[in-house]
Amino acid sequence: MPSNAPIGVFDSGVGGLTVAREILRQTPNETIIYFGDTARVPYGSKSKETIITYSRQIIKFLMSKGVKAIVIACNTASAMALDVVAAEVPIPVIGVVKPGAKAAADTTKSGNIGIIGTEGTINSGIYNQFLSKRNPNVKVYGKACPLFVPLVEEGWINDPITEEIAERYIGELKNTDIDTLVLGCTHYPLIRHVIASVVGDKVTLVNPAYETARCLKKTLETNGLESNTPAREHQFFVSDGAEKFKKFANTILPCEVVETKDVSV
Amino acid sequence: MPSNAPIGVFDSGVGGLTVAREILRQTPNETIIYFGDTARVPYGSKSKETIITYSRQIIKFLMSKGVKAIVIACNTASAMALDVVAAEVPIPVIGVVKPGAKAAADTTKSGNIGIIGTEGTINSGIYNQFLSKRNPNVKVYGKACPLFVPLVEEGWINDPITEEIAERYIGELKNTDIDTLVLGCTHYPLIRHVIASVVGDKVTLVNPAYETARCLKKTLETNGLESNTPAREHQFFVSDGAEKFKKFANTILPCEVVETKDVSV
Repeated sequence: MPSNAPIGVFDSGVGGLTVAREILRQTPNETIIYFGDTARVPYGSKSKETIITYSRQIIKFLMSKGVKAIVIACNTASAMALDVVAAEVPIPVIGVVKPGAKAAADTTKSGNIGIIGTEGTINSGIYNQFLSKRNPNVKVYGKACPLFVPLVEEGWINDPITEEIAERYIGELKNTDIDTLVLGCTHYPLIRHVIASVVGDKVTLVNPAYETARCLKKTLETNGLESNTPAREHQFFVSDGAEKFKKFANTILPCEVVETKDVSV
Repeated sequence: MPSNAPIGVFDSGVGGLTVAREILRQTPNETIIYFGDTARVPYGSKSKETIITYSRQIIKFLMSKGVKAIVIACNTASAMALDVVAAEVPIPVIGVVKPGAKAAADTTKSGNIGIIGTEGTINSGIYNQFLSKRNPNVKVYGKACPLFVPLVEEGWINDPITEEIAERYIGELKNTDIDTLVLGCTHYPLIRHVIASVVGDKVTLVNPAYETARCLKKTLETNGLESNTPAREHQFFVSDGAEKFKKFANTILPCEVVETKDVSV
């Protein structure tokens, strides 16, 4: 596998772009091939079997592009499909849940950790499992925040309504003595400032997108896979609505997304 | 075709249950076979080709259950697929857009009509097309309200946050002199009271779910297809998450939903 082969990144839609952004920041020599499954978004409400099937299809597509590693930039797919699909391919596959959980378990001092995410992620209890494995003494408080994704996609990033909804969702976590809060959905870093102001400065926010990019960097180094040439043009594929995706991507990424292709997997 | 054959009703998810509810109210002898495409919801962001493919698959499934007529209880599919798929089957197929548009064109006195719906429905301009056909002099004001669906699904039906968001979305329509507002998304009748209080009592709300059930009744009569025996047990199928669907259905329908089956189409 040539070390300047691209990194495959996939998500159910646009959310994984926050993970792609962190990868571009932390490993600027790497080239990304992004797949957003916009025809089948959201994954959070779908069954485990369905998520595994979709993930397999996307990984097959990314492998056909010659990727040297794959990042599942979607909490639901990381929670439900990672173990199964990682065992089926000969390249490293990493998800967002494990790096996020590891960082949270290492950050907390009180042992009380909050997790916010979609209904699918929170109900799956996947963060709890990884956190307990890392530190059996932690207590985890999960809270689903289903309106955050549509609020971000509506662009109401700096908005009193978003603040009010964040207060409603996260307010109840303030009655616990959490000192660490995991942003367990890839859209949430985009309203990080709102969430931070609700929880206050005694609570450390953990951004799994950031932790995942760190984990990828380490994985590439361990496997001697770091690119030693400048990144080529990043490529973006979606299963529906290429133009809409491109518009959103250009508000998030530090590079210009010049083309997005519709493909079926 | 036996006149006590069932009516097929489909939607991208749970929203079409407001149409099913109106059918049960207006034609209580009819038996419903409902299909909610919960694995692939939402349709609003998907392309026309994708929506036609999905609609064909679902209609094939409903036809295999021996339905005598089909109601497309989804604005997006009514807008994008109705004409194509209706020509392919030998039974009546009706959608929600045409009956809603007809009622609105017949209701307005000022000639100014507002439409609210998902981004997909509003951007498609489909209500405008039907309205202009019915009455070339009407002026149409469309407004996408993407947060209404997740608010309804969150259960924030009587909620100051929903009122505030409704005020934001619909407030700008108040500066026009609309006298009629179409609830162009099947979820919206569930927050009808909030929408009504924002627009005030000078604006008549048109509920396409109600108009569609009326249209179905008339279509059955015209074709001699009315059931003259009591309804049998209604059946509910979804492409994912049967239990969650059942729970929501039981908050909406006047009958108890005792079973929901997961099927793939």
